[in-house]
Amino acid sequence: MIKKPTLIIDKERCVKNIRFMAQKASRNNTDLRPHFKTHQQAEVGKWFVEEGIEKATVSSVSMARYFADNGWNDITIAFPVNILEIEEINELARKVRLNLLLESAYSTQFLKDNLTHNVGIFIKIDVGTKRTGIDPENSGLIESIFDIIDESPEMMFKGFLAHAGHSYSCKGNEEISSVYNEAIFILQKLKRKYHQRYTDLIISYGDTPTCSIIEDFSAIDEIRAGNFVFYDVTQWQIGSCEIKDIAVVVECPIVALHPQRNEVVIYGGGIHFSKDRIELEGFGTIYGIPVYHRGEGWGEIIQGAFLKRVSQEHGIVAMKAEDISVLSIGDTIKILPVHSCMAADLLRNDVEFKIN
Amino acid sequence: MIKKPTLIIDKERCVKNIRFMAQKASRNNTDLRPHFKTHQQAEVGKWFVEEGIEKATVSSVSMARYFADNGWNDITIAFPVNILEIEEINELARKVRLNLLLESAYSTQFLKDNLTHNVGIFIKIDVGTKRTGIDPENSGLIESIFDIIDESPEMMFKGFLAHAGHSYSCKGNEEISSVYNEAIFILQKLKRKYHQRYTDLIISYGDTPTCSIIEDFSAIDEIRAGNFVFYDVTQWQIGSCEIKDIAVVVECPIVALHPQRNEVVIYGGGIHFSKDRIELEGFGTIYGIPVYHRGEGWGEIIQGAFLKRVSQEHGIVAMKAEDISVLSIGDTIKILPVHSCMAADLLRNDVEFKIN
Repeated sequence: MIKKPTLIIDKERCVKNIRFMAQKASRNNTDLRPHFKTHQQAEVGKWFVEEGIEKATVSSVSMARYFADNGWNDITIAFPVNILEIEEINELARKVRLNLLLESAYSTQFLKDNLTHNVGIFIKIDVGTKRTGIDPENSGLIESIFDIIDESPEMMFKGFLAHAGHSYSCKGNEEISSVYNEAIFILQKLKRKYHQRYTDLIISYGDTPTCSIIEDFSAIDEIRAGNFVFYDVTQWQIGSCEIKDIAVVVECPIVALHPQRNEVVIYGGGIHFSKDRIELEGFGTIYGIPVYHRGEGWGEIIQGAFLKRVSQEHGIVAMKAEDISVLSIGDTIKILPVHSCMAADLLRNDVEFKIN
Repeated sequence: MIKKPTLIIDKERCVKNIRFMAQKASRNNTDLRPHFKTHQQAEVGKWFVEEGIEKATVSSVSMARYFADNGWNDITIAFPVNILEIEEINELARKVRLNLLLESAYSTQFLKDNLTHNVGIFIKIDVGTKRTGIDPENSGLIESIFDIIDESPEMMFKGFLAHAGHSYSCKGNEEISSVYNEAIFILQKLKRKYHQRYTDLIISYGDTPTCSIIEDFSAIDEIRAGNFVFYDVTQWQIGSCEIKDIAVVVECPIVALHPQRNEVVIYGGGIHFSKDRIELEGFGTIYGIPVYHRGEGWGEIIQGAFLKRVSQEHGIVAMKAEDISVLSIGDTIKILPVHSCMAADLLRNDVEFKIN
């Protein structure tokens, strides 16, 4: 029984999402190395194994250690290497096949001087997000990193990695395709340029919007999407999924009813949902969308209802008075989160699985 | 040594903030029952004890249990009672002096039927925030709650409690005073109306902006501010504190430098700072403000620098090229958070104390 805000993970929906992406990758002869920062759950990892996935992406050394401890042997930390954690990195590299991400000569030299075990190296390329990565035109920097790598017996260059984070501000297939095509053009050009030097180099790419929508991945060697296992309201708005594909809700106790202002107060706030929000046409700023209970799972969205405000522990759900009239204090309400990665991180220790 | 995003709590600054508020309460002959949702640390709780504070406010049953386990004997859960946790509530009420918050006849009746130990009851009054609480004009509801309380041997009415959450959107002393005066007018009227029925009833009030700025609290019996122990960029912007009063930073490893676009990439994102943000004049949306290192602590803010973007684990700090030029990958950067309560919750297990 749910007593406090809890992330409910619907296995059936997750497996469907995993299978969809695994089959798409397989049709394209592309490796799927899903990003596990979305779920951060060993149990969900097992569902990937059952679909034939054996490689994972994570975004921190701690997360790599967690999945290594849970049987994962081939892990890419898709985050510019944090050299302060060199000890933990060496310890991990001793145990599993580990890939690291570089975007500077400085960090490359540091690894050359301090690695004690073999690692694979990806170079992060900025394909337009302007968050991290090397300008693809900066051949001087790319090649100086190559030179350091080649002098290191511990480092093996694997390829170019990119994350088109700017696809998250896209809307619909056309905009997403345009981001994808531009990114692939950049990455393929680099691959052609350097494939003599590194005949096995691969292109690793991935974000949920493009991986969900694009059908032809033949230009990519590896996709790293992660959010698709759960999806969320943001992905639905982008056009990556339908509401019925969203595989998690945050279930929250109702603590007060205010039908006179069409509001329900829940135990469930910013420390459960995060403060991630989106603008939804006709609603304004929203933090989540309530759905109807259906047994252990959930059904359709409650028309017109939305999580309109969150403070640290409180949430205010806007809802029509007629929908409020059937609720009681002590009931729970299930809410599709705006950003499932953030909610899943916050509720990592408050999870229940809906297994059929 | 800091290897990953860590909350640094400066004891000296905290104690100064605690002393400031404790002395102000004492001058006004008002009880201070600080809100511990801000820090959630037994260690910080001890610093309150050293300043003579023995009562605490929390926002969840879990938090009440944590502080009860750490020696606190008089705790108010300032959140509409979550009846699903009745078992945990009874267990707590058995051990400590516990106050609960009610705003409906339904929950009051539920407590009457299910409490096994004595608790104090506050009625939540809405003084204009429109989040939770009873309309102060709704005497019918207030009195029906009284009637249920009076029939229960376990419940003892303590008074009216309000949180002027709308003071967080104030700017400067005048706006805050106006929120305060309106709230106090409402609460005093209720106190006068019902003091015959409950001669010991008190008014419990508190939010950091008003408690920081208002000098004369003589109209209030108890203040419950919490954020003041740390303060943050938001409180500085509201006018509750100065930059030098902010007692926490999030210290983050630098993982990449992009001087050509005046950016530093840190390991430190939405799962460390939260996605709480404010609009800062001349800067736009910010998530935090970097300060200069000074030994184990920190000094002035770095002019023109700000945390401009956060994703799950990444942060992008905007900074002048000349300030970037003295930084290296593997250094850390200390950042004043926009909302210290959220950052402290997220980093609850990644804390270091700066003791002198």
